[in-house]
Amino acid sequence: MRVAVIHGPNLNLLGLREPDVYGRETLEEINRRLQARASELGVELTITQSNHEGGVVEAIQACREAADAIIINPAALTHYSLAVRDALAAVGLPAVEVHLSNIHAREPFRRVSVTASVCRGQISGFGSLGYLLALEAAKAILEAA
Amino acid sequence: MRVAVIHGPNLNLLGLREPDVYGRETLEEINRRLQARASELGVELTITQSNHEGGVVEAIQACREAADAIIINPAALTHYSLAVRDALAAVGLPAVEVHLSNIHAREPFRRVSVTASVCRGQISGFGSLGYLLALEAAKAILEAA
Amino acid sequence: MRVAVIHGPNLNLLGLREPDVYGRETLEEINRRLQARASELGVELTITQSNHEGGVVEAIQACREAADAIIINPAALTHYSLAVRDALAAVGLPAVEVHLSNIHAREPFRRVSVTASVCRGQISGFGSLGYLLALEAAKAILEAA
Amino acid sequence: MRVAVIHGPNLNLLGLREPDVYGRETLEEINRRLQARASELGVELTITQSNHEGGVVEAIQACREAADAIIINPAALTHYSLAVRDALAAVGLPAVEVHLSNIHAREPFRRVSVTASVCRGQISGFGSLGYLLALEAAKAILEAA
Amino acid sequence: MRVAVIHGPNLNLLGLREPDVYGRETLEEINRRLQARASELGVELTITQSNHEGGVVEAIQACREAADAIIINPAALTHYSLAVRDALAAVGLPAVEVHLSNIHAREPFRRVSVTASVCRGQISGFGSLGYLLALEAAKAILEAA
Amino acid sequence: MRVAVIHGPNLNLLGLREPDVYGRETLEEINRRLQARASELGVELTITQSNHEGGVVEAIQACREAADAIIINPAALTHYSLAVRDALAAVGLPAVEVHLSNIHAREPFRRVSVTASVCRGQISGFGSLGYLLALEAAKAILEAA
Amino acid sequence: MRVAVIHGPNLNLLGLREPDVYGRETLEEINRRLQARASELGVELTITQSNHEGGVVEAIQACREAADAIIINPAALTHYSLAVRDALAAVGLPAVEVHLSNIHAREPFRRVSVTASVCRGQISGFGSLGYLLALEAAKAILEAA
Amino acid sequence: MRVAVIHGPNLNLLGLREPDVYGRETLEEINRRLQARASELGVELTITQSNHEGGVVEAIQACREAADAIIINPAALTHYSLAVRDALAAVGLPAVEVHLSNIHAREPFRRVSVTASVCRGQISGFGSLGYLLALEAAKAILEAA
Amino acid sequence: MRVAVIHGPNLNLLGLREPDVYGRETLEEINRRLQARASELGVELTITQSNHEGGVVEAIQACREAADAIIINPAALTHYSLAVRDALAAVGLPAVEVHLSNIHAREPFRRVSVTASVCRGQISGFGSLGYLLALEAAKAILEAA
Amino acid sequence: MRVAVIHGPNLNLLGLREPDVYGRETLEEINRRLQARASELGVELTITQSNHEGGVVEAIQACREAADAIIINPAALTHYSLAVRDALAAVGLPAVEVHLSNIHAREPFRRVSVTASVCRGQISGFGSLGYLLALEAAKAILEAA
Amino acid sequence: MRVAVIHGPNLNLLGLREPDVYGRETLEEINRRLQARASELGVELTITQSNHEGGVVEAIQACREAADAIIINPAALTHYSLAVRDALAAVGLPAVEVHLSNIHAREPFRRVSVTASVCRGQISGFGSLGYLLALEAAKAILEAA
Amino acid sequence: MRVAVIHGPNLNLLGLREPDVYGRETLEEINRRLQARASELGVELTITQSNHEGGVVEAIQACREAADAIIINPAALTHYSLAVRDALAAVGLPAVEVHLSNIHAREPFRRVSVTASVCRGQISGFGSLGYLLALEAAKAILEAA
Repeated sequence: MRVAVIHGPNLNLLGLREPDVYGRETLEEINRRLQARASELGVELTITQSNHEGGVVEAIQACREAADAIIINPAALTHYSLAVRDALAAVGLPAVEVHLSNIHAREPFRRVSVTASVCRGQISGFGSLGYLLALEAAKAILEAA
Repeated sequence: MRVAVIHGPNLNLLGLREPDVYGRETLEEINRRLQARASELGVELTITQSNHEGGVVEAIQACREAADAIIINPAALTHYSLAVRDALAAVGLPAVEVHLSNIHAREPFRRVSVTASVCRGQISGFGSLGYLLALEAAKAILEAA
Repeated sequence: MRVAVIHGPNLNLLGLREPDVYGRETLEEINRRLQARASELGVELTITQSNHEGGVVEAIQACREAADAIIINPAALTHYSLAVRDALAAVGLPAVEVHLSNIHAREPFRRVSVTASVCRGQISGFGSLGYLLALEAAKAILEAA
Repeated sequence: MRVAVIHGPNLNLLGLREPDVYGRETLEEINRRLQARASELGVELTITQSNHEGGVVEAIQACREAADAIIINPAALTHYSLAVRDALAAVGLPAVEVHLSNIHAREPFRRVSVTASVCRGQISGFGSLGYLLALEAAKAILEAA
Repeated sequence: MRVAVIHGPNLNLLGLREPDVYGRETLEEINRRLQARASELGVELTITQSNHEGGVVEAIQACREAADAIIINPAALTHYSLAVRDALAAVGLPAVEVHLSNIHAREPFRRVSVTASVCRGQISGFGSLGYLLALEAAKAILEAA
Repeated sequence: MRVAVIHGPNLNLLGLREPDVYGRETLEEINRRLQARASELGVELTITQSNHEGGVVEAIQACREAADAIIINPAALTHYSLAVRDALAAVGLPAVEVHLSNIHAREPFRRVSVTASVCRGQISGFGSLGYLLALEAAKAILEAA
Repeated sequence: MRVAVIHGPNLNLLGLREPDVYGRETLEEINRRLQARASELGVELTITQSNHEGGVVEAIQACREAADAIIINPAALTHYSLAVRDALAAVGLPAVEVHLSNIHAREPFRRVSVTASVCRGQISGFGSLGYLLALEAAKAILEAA
Repeated sequence: MRVAVIHGPNLNLLGLREPDVYGRETLEEINRRLQARASELGVELTITQSNHEGGVVEAIQACREAADAIIINPAALTHYSLAVRDALAAVGLPAVEVHLSNIHAREPFRRVSVTASVCRGQISGFGSLGYLLALEAAKAILEAA
Repeated sequence: MRVAVIHGPNLNLLGLREPDVYGRETLEEINRRLQARASELGVELTITQSNHEGGVVEAIQACREAADAIIINPAALTHYSLAVRDALAAVGLPAVEVHLSNIHAREPFRRVSVTASVCRGQISGFGSLGYLLALEAAKAILEAA
Repeated sequence: MRVAVIHGPNLNLLGLREPDVYGRETLEEINRRLQARASELGVELTITQSNHEGGVVEAIQACREAADAIIINPAALTHYSLAVRDALAAVGLPAVEVHLSNIHAREPFRRVSVTASVCRGQISGFGSLGYLLALEAAKAILEAA
Repeated sequence: MRVAVIHGPNLNLLGLREPDVYGRETLEEINRRLQARASELGVELTITQSNHEGGVVEAIQACREAADAIIINPAALTHYSLAVRDALAAVGLPAVEVHLSNIHAREPFRRVSVTASVCRGQISGFGSLGYLLALEAAKAILEAA
Repeated sequence: MRVAVIHGPNLNLLGLREPDVYGRETLEEINRRLQARASELGVELTITQSNHEGGVVEAIQACREAADAIIINPAALTHYSLAVRDALAAVGLPAVEVHLSNIHAREPFRRVSVTASVCRGQISGFGSLGYLLALEAAKAILEAA
């Protein structure tokens, strides 16, 4: 069971960037926790981060060969990148959208997700825990398939 | 650690109602799984369902005395019940919003949540698993407080 | 052939309330005419009225066991109650929406029906006659099924 | 008691056109059923169909001399023809708007009727039965006048 | 100096139709007054009325050969007929738009004119006097050209 | 002179709920102040609170027999409950809408009142004093009638 | 028969300002032509210009004593000055709105007139001739009264 | 305790202007009643009226030296004058917005107040009584400060 | 292989009308080029033009018997004629929508096509060449069927 | 080289008014800094402030004789005063719009400028420094002309 | 005659991705057909694909030196990439926009093209044939230049 | 004092691209002028240009180590790139947004800036001079900090 985790733009700054909104953990720490949990669950994990829309698109495309499910935090791209949306639809794998902050309690433009409708579901507002919950969800989806 | 689970209108029909959208589990089965998981996590669980907006409001108000956190699936009320929103804001407890289906992939009117912005976060699209993930999230929020 | 008639909020005031908009017949009189016509048509009729959204929802849910078709005048709930809509979709029975006044000739907010799209059709503007026409329609739908 | 039935554009294709939306009856068959029912009710019926907005307008204008009430299915014109609306307002006869399909359950642009507000009421979603119900409604309106 | 007057749908009912909105003069009377005033001004007048959008379009097209200016009351077509608009733009003659009633003081949908922007100007609200003023305006425009 | 005071959802939590928005007085204290002032003014006062839309609707309906004027704070229902609006229109008594907070200075969705247009007037932003001012207004309206 | 002509902001620059939009005549020249035509028609004319909204409001108010009808070109105020609108409604005299340019063929914000609905009618697009036509219209309205 | 009352455009016509909307009292009579009530309450009152937005702005600015609270009826300026809004925000005194008519029951454009959000509260719909209630409110606000 | 070409309102003026927008070729010339190309491709071509919406509707209806595919330039009707749309849907033949000018680079109202979604595709902006390309497309569609 | 600086409503309160938004400098201090900088640059400066829209309009009109360029901070008028816009367009001089605060980071209604499109450019968010930058810009524009 | 073909994001997955929407041909096959047709037409073809907005922008910029016309399928970027739009406007070459599917018959967000208005025209809905038609169009445009 | 200048997509074409909109200077010339002015002001300048959104994001991120302030012209990205916005918010340095053309006088979609609200201010419409003014502003902001 292979799951690909894809982090979008600016998530490489986690922990350094607006900690009251996004928390104090760095992306590296989150990735370590994800890898640890994946081991427990018997999931093989690959993790990518890109500040480029095209980088995110290609990371998704690569999953056609290399993953059974996708966990994606498209960050700002969530709200306008139809290219990311099309990539998710094209690979056709079950995907879980994650947001660290509660996007429903922030600026109005963050309430619209153009990617969520081609994912299985969305988890937002629980900080880095959201990724761990997404991992459980992805595993359950794959087991049920 | 006490968590109140509140199910909104029509959720009493789960399993019977539009199974391709909402799955085949009944509410009773979901509640049993929730209770089982709560026992494992050492969480004391109370569960309510109401088809009345006022019933949901009063279930939320009752949490001021009787719970440390709320897991709520406001169902159709999600999209217009400012009374439910105000009740959540009034009790001031951490709340997790759950939706069985992926509300972002359905009719446009289901993409708006008037309650999510007064919750800590939202989990949607994972069927009954969503409640179990919400339980983990609620526990983590209470432990971190 | 069993048909349930469900009257929404404030319809208990019919005849007393704004007679130039809603006519002078009381709800009791309308119900009597409905029962009489049902007898002629060989339809078994049950009639409910509720000023509570939850009451309307539960009256609809009760039809799963107790009726073959629904005639509903959701009154003000027509325009915003997604809970009523979900209940109608959940029970899956053929439903006919009735409005006493011509909702298309009144305030703009009355022109939107969130329930009509989960009904078979809608009859509006013919006063209490609308209920009788709905009864004929319901019978024809059941006979054609 | 004279009632004019006016069918708008493309209704001449009924039965041939998108039968899953509009049913399998031809316009001729519907007209025959209408004439039969009119005889029973003691109503004198004239029936017109036009694919031209101006044809519909002039059919309505002709009713000033030749009819006591109008049953109209403006078809696509329902949604934009202010000329049809003005014609209905100008002749000032009671009119009943009929739609074969449930316009509230189709494309958003079909939910707006620019003509309904100058009619007495609207019946939609019951196929050709809608015309028969409209006939009853028209008769009742004329008898009550 | 030749001016074509074109009356749109339902204007043939003037005097008979909603006299509180449109006045009591018939179209024939208005036309007579227009002819009289045209004689005084030395203007050769042709007058058409059509209930068909296509009829109005072709009356406008005919002006390419037969008129130096156009006075047009597109009636209901004012608000949606891009075909009339395109015809006016195509013939390229100076045109004056006339409305009997004050379209700015009626239903919101009557405040939008899709034709006015391809006319020289618009006169609305002065009843049949508006046509006479339009005649003066047309004459002045032609003399100034 | 009988005046009915009707408090909507969540107002039973006053003093406990978001005191920086709604003040520190409890509903009981406000009711006591209202009763005291009513005595001074020679007004007979009845007070109800309901967390149910249907409860508010029925409290309003009860005024047909039991009151000469209504003071109502529909709370969250202000912004969407057409059922409350219809109830107020149906009983036809003079009504005064009260809001503790200044609804014009809060979230955009709180600036829309669907009930105010069927009331005589609205008082918002003065905390519990607003109810006392409403009492004076109600008395003056009844005396002027 | 007394008619007041009121020119709004920036019209004192006529002839100097954007001549391709507003023409080359100065306001003084227009006023002279207006006075000449008024003499012919036996109308007593007073003319004001103000760059101040309050000045326009007070010029309108002064007409209660001093005029039988108003010709007004509110210029930019047309599109937002509810104070000018209220003044026109308050004095209750028949008013004719004039615009030099065709406001329907310019920027979208110029297509909305907040004042036209409290005037008898509107004349736009004919340059200074519009004022003369308005004078005829005002005279006809007064004679018909 | 000094309170400044500021009346906006066209309020000098009160009693003369649209009495069915604004009542029959003149502004002078209202001011006399206000002064009388102020004496009773021990409040020192200054009253201004201006038909000029700039006049209203400067009356508000003058309050920085000369008043402890403001009662303002911005009349038509309520709906668009951001300059009045900025003046109220700039002086920073508690302000009470008053409207004679129920602005929520009139034209849609009157339902928007750009000034209310920088006032403490708003009273609308009670005719001249509204000013007296505002005076009580202003006094209570100052006493509570 | 029979293809029907249908030209909408005002296209009979091509070459004469706004040549900078629509080019200098007349409709006759375009039709000749179309016939020539059709001969080369072995396609039997019939060509109609109508300034009447009803005329276009009936030309489309006639294709049920007389054509295998449709090439249509609905001209102004593109943007509002739901009757044309319904006719295209009703006949169910593959249709290609053509526009001489680039409708995406003109007035906003020309960017909406109510007919394109019931066609196979749309070609716009290439002048008369667009019709020839449409012919190729129609042929390819029929061959692939 | 003559430059006119025009300050709009409420700017006379600078330094006193909401210092966290607008800074602590008074208008007099800003004007002194502007005069000093103008001397250095060899620019002749005239400075006006008005709380009246009409005053701002007339200050702009006066520039036709008295200035080569305009620096304007229309303050609240920025967002709705089409009269100020028309005055700027009428005088035709190069104008620079200045805002002390960053209007893009404040209330939504402050993000719309109806005047900026008739200015050469806009500088916002740099406090009083913005005026000095505007002076440099104005000088450069005049030298480049 | 050099034509550059630029394929946007996710088009590298053609044939593999949602074949019912986009067809079964791979991008390589389409490119081969394009090259073959280009040879026949005597056109020199270069073909690029990029999943990066910046890559598409730079491919367009490169055309300033290397191409006489552009055929572009911006894929998802069509609907939001103003950077692609600006690049097309900047190079100033004639461009033809191609879409495989009929964008007018899909999700509403796909009906908006921010790039089409800086292209000569648009071809959509004909699958890979669209590219061949675009090639013909590009050739004709260049020959006509 | 280190300032980073970041140029967005297509700015590498400056001087070559639409010179009537963007001027005739090349980016290289602008950069030389900026460096010269920076030397005078004692500011250390680094300059980047990228056609990739991701490139702009990473240039901003790099400023966390390498700059004290940012001058950014996001070009087309201004209007939709939330990733650029988030990057600016994340690094938390004072930023000045520059636009060569007056974005308020161009297409409507250019009037919205999603980045301006996380900058200190915006300068638009002064061509390359805008960068020099921004440099002064950045210096002043850093000196005031």
